[in-house]
Amino acid sequence: MANGTYVEASYERDTAYIEDRITSDGTGQWPVEAGRYRLIAARACPWANRTIIVRRLLGLEGAISMGLAGPTHDADSWTFDLDPGGLDPVLRIPKLKDAYERRFPGYPKGITVPAIVDVPSGEVVTNNFPQITVDFSEQWRDFQREGAPDLLPAQLRGEMERVNKRVYTEVNNGVYRCGFSGSQEAYDAAFDRLFTALDWLEERLADRRYLMGDTITEADVRLFTTLARFDPVYHGHFKCNRSKLDELPNLWGYARDLFQTPGFGDTISFSQIKEHYYIVHSDINPTGIVPDGPDLSNWVSPHGREALGGSPFGAGTAPGPVPEGERVPVAENPHIGADGLVVVPGA
Amino acid sequence: MANGTYVEASYERDTAYIEDRITSDGTGQWPVEAGRYRLIAARACPWANRTIIVRRLLGLEGAISMGLAGPTHDADSWTFDLDPGGLDPVLRIPKLKDAYERRFPGYPKGITVPAIVDVPSGEVVTNNFPQITVDFSEQWRDFQREGAPDLLPAQLRGEMERVNKRVYTEVNNGVYRCGFSGSQEAYDAAFDRLFTALDWLEERLADRRYLMGDTITEADVRLFTTLARFDPVYHGHFKCNRSKLDELPNLWGYARDLFQTPGFGDTISFSQIKEHYYIVHSDINPTGIVPDGPDLSNWVSPHGREALGGSPFGAGTAPGPVPEGERVPVAENPHIGADGLVVVPGA
Repeated sequence: MANGTYVEASYERDTAYIEDRITSDGTGQWPVEAGRYRLIAARACPWANRTIIVRRLLGLEGAISMGLAGPTHDADSWTFDLDPGGLDPVLRIPKLKDAYERRFPGYPKGITVPAIVDVPSGEVVTNNFPQITVDFSEQWRDFQREGAPDLLPAQLRGEMERVNKRVYTEVNNGVYRCGFSGSQEAYDAAFDRLFTALDWLEERLADRRYLMGDTITEADVRLFTTLARFDPVYHGHFKCNRSKLDELPNLWGYARDLFQTPGFGDTISFSQIKEHYYIVHSDINPTGIVPDGPDLSNWVSPHGREALGGSPFGAGTAPGPVPEGERVPVAENPHIGADGLVVVPGA
Repeated sequence: MANGTYVEASYERDTAYIEDRITSDGTGQWPVEAGRYRLIAARACPWANRTIIVRRLLGLEGAISMGLAGPTHDADSWTFDLDPGGLDPVLRIPKLKDAYERRFPGYPKGITVPAIVDVPSGEVVTNNFPQITVDFSEQWRDFQREGAPDLLPAQLRGEMERVNKRVYTEVNNGVYRCGFSGSQEAYDAAFDRLFTALDWLEERLADRRYLMGDTITEADVRLFTTLARFDPVYHGHFKCNRSKLDELPNLWGYARDLFQTPGFGDTISFSQIKEHYYIVHSDINPTGIVPDGPDLSNWVSPHGREALGGSPFGAGTAPGPVPEGERVPVAENPHIGADGLVVVPGA
């Protein structure tokens, strides 16, 4: 995603999206169909990172292909500068904007990831990120791998929605509110809101292995993508610096627990994450210099969270090796092994 | 100090100063004389902070008065905006530049702190910061307090000069080299140099209580002023972020040991330090927003360095309470007590 504006000196995210859905009930314009749709994401972007993780946890790689935009972009659009010739190899376009324009000529809003594109027409179907992952779980059930976990357990949905809402407004978006504050007063208030929420999470995770209890749910995916960016970017670049994540013992143990679980850390490109924020936001980092820190070696240190019990995938199983062609290079995440998974020493 | 320039994309400090000295041998233009000179410092500035600490350790408060410029300044000069009416109460000038101009009309170089001003004439005598503290120790001996420590022990001078030189080029100045790098390549090289030096210090301090051994010397003063600014400013603002100071156990214990020793932590205004860097350097922080972190409570936590033995002041004694009028307000350093000293819980 890359879309927001200053409103009265405090940051507000533009949340008007293309809200079409791909559905399995046979009545909609966009039916579930293997091979028809392409997820366009970017490893840099936390909102897109959600979709990369959920697609992988559910084993939808064979049903929904994935294209990845590069970490940096101009004011116009995310671009496929990582691909040979600078073209997405399936859509044959250089900029994600082309797929938005194909759908809505003169599209007036921000060009955001994640987006799902209908491959035959080349048109964007949806960029409504909070719905995309829910639909991966609910609409694409027939195409999920054997052992795919239930990320949206029915009996937890009510509480999960409350948790998700607070995590979204206070944490996922809260870090941006700090970084894009237009005044000291707006920043001070944003900083207090963010750390109030992190303290709440720190307490919540003291006796729960995962956010909703004993197994991983979509709530964990949503929190994880912000935590993975916290020390590398948000702490310095967005001035979220009351403490580093690794100074909050429960949250840090939780973040490492997830990072070391197949489907999470193996989607993370620390270098793309850092490049994105430090280069794209030239208004807050005019030099464009990307920090060489922090030391990332501690992400695979023992987290001790097994002592809380639980089972990450419940009745399901972990996803297997990352498909070739979708593996994060070790130069972008020092913990990636030969099969694309995170290597945990001693595990 | 506030003086430097970009040279071939890597930062070089301008080290041409007014090099006059105040001496005790009766032959010089500027003789040692109680009440004649005024030290102009700024709590924000690490180079000026050295002089504040040494003056206090040696008990020269009665012989050399002190004026303090505010934390922020424009391109022209440090200013006395903290004083009533915006005038230094002794020199009766609004800007330190006025004292430089009184000495050298049309003074073409940067207006830096620390500076020593001859009160009768209102002229700057010297701004040669590495010499000022040495002269406090050697030329002002007759005016030092009873129990003043020997910060320049003769038998350690040779080694101390080597340590000081490396600390100066690699650490004191090394953080600026990171922050003011004009290219990614210059920054990467500066980052490596800085952390190579911090690793050397981390090892050196593993079995030495202080940099030169069992007692505090000027070498410790010079390192401390950079360490006190590391997590509040250099880690984020200058991108010195391989690790926070508090992640380097020996250096962090050492920094806290000094902070909790009279003469060190009681000179530190964290808020002036943060305001200075984040507001004055608008080229690297154009928003001017000052971070609310980090949490500073850990500066008074137990450091355990007593186990290494040693005695901070050797044959001397600790300085007493901070003179009224020179105390750091608790709003600027949460650890300041009623007598101006740092309060260490349980000590």
